[in-house]
Amino acid sequence: MTNAKTFRLGTLAELLQVELIGDSDCLIDGLATLRQATPGKLGFLSNPQYANQLSSCRASAVIISPKFIDACEINKLISDTPYVVYAKASKLFDSSPEVPAIIHPSSVVNESAEIAEDVSIGANAVIEAGVVIGAGSIIGPGCIVGEGSQIGEDCHLHGNVSIYHKVKLGNRVEIHSGAIIGADGFGFAFDGEKSVKIVQLGSVQIADDVEIGAGTTIDRGALDDTVIEQGVKIDNQVQIGHNCRIGAHSVICGCTAIAGSAVIGKYCVLGGASGVVGHISIADKVKVSAMSLVSQAIDKEGVYSSGTGVMETARWKKSIVRFRQLDELTKRLSRLEKNQK
Amino acid sequence: MTNAKTFRLGTLAELLQVELIGDSDCLIDGLATLRQATPGKLGFLSNPQYANQLSSCRASAVIISPKFIDACEINKLISDTPYVVYAKASKLFDSSPEVPAIIHPSSVVNESAEIAEDVSIGANAVIEAGVVIGAGSIIGPGCIVGEGSQIGEDCHLHGNVSIYHKVKLGNRVEIHSGAIIGADGFGFAFDGEKSVKIVQLGSVQIADDVEIGAGTTIDRGALDDTVIEQGVKIDNQVQIGHNCRIGAHSVICGCTAIAGSAVIGKYCVLGGASGVVGHISIADKVKVSAMSLVSQAIDKEGVYSSGTGVMETARWKKSIVRFRQLDELTKRLSRLEKNQK
Amino acid sequence: MTNAKTFRLGTLAELLQVELIGDSDCLIDGLATLRQATPGKLGFLSNPQYANQLSSCRASAVIISPKFIDACEINKLISDTPYVVYAKASKLFDSSPEVPAIIHPSSVVNESAEIAEDVSIGANAVIEAGVVIGAGSIIGPGCIVGEGSQIGEDCHLHGNVSIYHKVKLGNRVEIHSGAIIGADGFGFAFDGEKSVKIVQLGSVQIADDVEIGAGTTIDRGALDDTVIEQGVKIDNQVQIGHNCRIGAHSVICGCTAIAGSAVIGKYCVLGGASGVVGHISIADKVKVSAMSLVSQAIDKEGVYSSGTGVMETARWKKSIVRFRQLDELTKRLSRLEKNQK
Repeated sequence: MTNAKTFRLGTLAELLQVELIGDSDCLIDGLATLRQATPGKLGFLSNPQYANQLSSCRASAVIISPKFIDACEINKLISDTPYVVYAKASKLFDSSPEVPAIIHPSSVVNESAEIAEDVSIGANAVIEAGVVIGAGSIIGPGCIVGEGSQIGEDCHLHGNVSIYHKVKLGNRVEIHSGAIIGADGFGFAFDGEKSVKIVQLGSVQIADDVEIGAGTTIDRGALDDTVIEQGVKIDNQVQIGHNCRIGAHSVICGCTAIAGSAVIGKYCVLGGASGVVGHISIADKVKVSAMSLVSQAIDKEGVYSSGTGVMETARWKKSIVRFRQLDELTKRLSRLEKNQK
Repeated sequence: MTNAKTFRLGTLAELLQVELIGDSDCLIDGLATLRQATPGKLGFLSNPQYANQLSSCRASAVIISPKFIDACEINKLISDTPYVVYAKASKLFDSSPEVPAIIHPSSVVNESAEIAEDVSIGANAVIEAGVVIGAGSIIGPGCIVGEGSQIGEDCHLHGNVSIYHKVKLGNRVEIHSGAIIGADGFGFAFDGEKSVKIVQLGSVQIADDVEIGAGTTIDRGALDDTVIEQGVKIDNQVQIGHNCRIGAHSVICGCTAIAGSAVIGKYCVLGGASGVVGHISIADKVKVSAMSLVSQAIDKEGVYSSGTGVMETARWKKSIVRFRQLDELTKRLSRLEKNQK
Repeated sequence: MTNAKTFRLGTLAELLQVELIGDSDCLIDGLATLRQATPGKLGFLSNPQYANQLSSCRASAVIISPKFIDACEINKLISDTPYVVYAKASKLFDSSPEVPAIIHPSSVVNESAEIAEDVSIGANAVIEAGVVIGAGSIIGPGCIVGEGSQIGEDCHLHGNVSIYHKVKLGNRVEIHSGAIIGADGFGFAFDGEKSVKIVQLGSVQIADDVEIGAGTTIDRGALDDTVIEQGVKIDNQVQIGHNCRIGAHSVICGCTAIAGSAVIGKYCVLGGASGVVGHISIADKVKVSAMSLVSQAIDKEGVYSSGTGVMETARWKKSIVRFRQLDELTKRLSRLEKNQK
């Protein structure tokens, strides 16, 4: 918790456009959870099950919904959506380094690249021929932007991101280190003896306000493009195969694997380390729990799971033996039922 | 779908060595699926279940097998293996950037490295002492090739690939960005208090015509080498532990995890996000379905799976409760059967 | 198996502090498994189930426990912990390249960085403002160390590692290529229409003697830090979410995914490709088997599993159908039991 910024609570209320109850001159120098807050911090209550922590909370102020106004004596910022207000407040306390809008002399920028104003290109970054980079974008150190790719405005590629050729990014796209956009989709035709590569002629389109996590890979399409729609948030080490389409505002948690040509709806949430097989569609607003495999299309909003849940291995082994016998067990049960009639 | 190349259909038939039925002067400027093809495109029918799309297909020509010759009026390229012909055609329409055979001045190439003719070394790449790179190979920007490693002929390392020391690559090996070959295998001896590192003295051998996906990691062996045999195709974010051997022409889909000392046969297909435990063998021609864990050796060709398939979570929870009771349920069933006799 | 070092067996016994039985002048030029050892090699027997390989072993010497002293005629190094002795011996035969303690002229080191003595900074590495690097540390080629981060003494970052800002590493931390430490945790507040980013104000603390595998990602905390305690060993492509705490000396195998705010005890072993859901705790000395999902807190030492084990797909499909019916099957069983009474 290092951050050097301090705000009057009244200023925060104005910036966050919320009602203040309490001392507007109280100084706030950071954010904290209710339980770990110390004087000077602004806490928040988003999950009502932690409401009992309010009474002992040492924060100088808290963000809470109206129904908890009487739950404590602390200064309050009132909002119906305290978690969203906390998110907005986190931006105010951002202490990540300022990146100067310079093109580092050690970077290698092809003379045919079009670099808009206020762009930062980090040390040892490589910008290939025909690349277009919009105003205000930051290309981190060690990044590679391949021939003919287009980066919109106010994008942020952290260090060591690899963008292949002819990839298109919208505006305000943030990509974390080690992510790889536009590598070849995995396509081969087996000729009876060996796999013959199918050259991947499509590319990748990433719409506005997408965030992509560290080490995530999004492959270019075989014929058409792989498409990530507006506002999609993708965590670390996610794999998105060629020709997938991820619907707007969907959230894909870490280590999820989505096979080629899968179509994910809008406002979906794929839990961590989940999987989606290829060539299927998932409806809007579907939630998939952690490490579940979506093995067939889902055409109805809802929550879906697979797997067995964790058990002590000794007991689990017994269940597993019976799992293998399930069909026989069912038949034995049916015979018993028949006999009893 | 950007590609600037145009061919006469007759020329394509010659290049692809297939029979042409129709107008050899018809101009083809790209490939497309039957459903999305527009005039000027060459479509293909590999999966017979899409045959009904032929009648409404707008492509200028299609690649089809002889039995569909009468299914449409479009110009045709005839082959018993239309998918393989499509793969070969994709190479003709490849529009990825040409890479000039130069050693970029910003790269750092140790003077003891042996670089053959027609090699391209990209911006900011690092080639360490004693490295050997064969004719026609491309080392992308930001790549690192560690001391004493050998790269064969006509290899292609895309940007930001990391090769540790003493790794050997055959010819025509393609490695995508972010892949890491030859990092230490995960070996420790627990001394009762802490883990003592086992220095990994082996390396990695990769045979001819192997393709390795973005972000994939292949560890060096503990004593002997980790071996990837000829023609193996590995997708993105696959992890291959130390001392594994992957048999020739096997295909490993994205996010698969193979633990140390596993031996995979030839012509196997491991589905996406599948797993293989360490120190086991898998026979030739085994197929494993997505997200299955191969928890024991497989000594017979066939198709194998684990897991439960996806369900609505509410129903799934009920199954899970019973899964935990499976052994007890089976015993209750056996008691009933005994009583009935 | 390339290594150029040769030791007298007597010297090895001294260096490894073990008893020697046999010819102290025997020359040893490498390590090998019992089965693959040739003359000149030092073998070892750690798993007693391989004891029958001793009689035919061609090694010049073996590391064994006292109870196998009479099992073969080969020269012997005697230890109660032969596997630990093998680990220590592996260090003696290490043949990985020596890295000179120089700051490569192509690296970009901010003038405000504090670089101790005997530090190596590789080609094209980027060291940002305010970074502190302790004596004897090696920063590989292409690495990025972000603003204000601190690297302890005798650390080794292999090539292309990305460290974000304000990350703290202890001493003797080894990080393999492509690993990313301190990228943003995955935090968003949904405002009814879109995801609002929660700026991640915490960082990452990594204690002494931690090893981190290739392509592994460890996210910075939302408010407090993500913490990796002393002696933790993390394999390749592991994902550790924001605000996790991994207890001292735990071992996390490849491709494991740990969601945010999970707390793992000390001396745990998480098997390959396992998962841990967020906001739960796991007790000390818990072992989780490969590809298991820890879906709830575990408060007792032991071995835990989930999943079904692999089967031939044809049979598996039958079990799956019945798995979906498990609750109904159980009710049918209960009815039968009731009727029988």
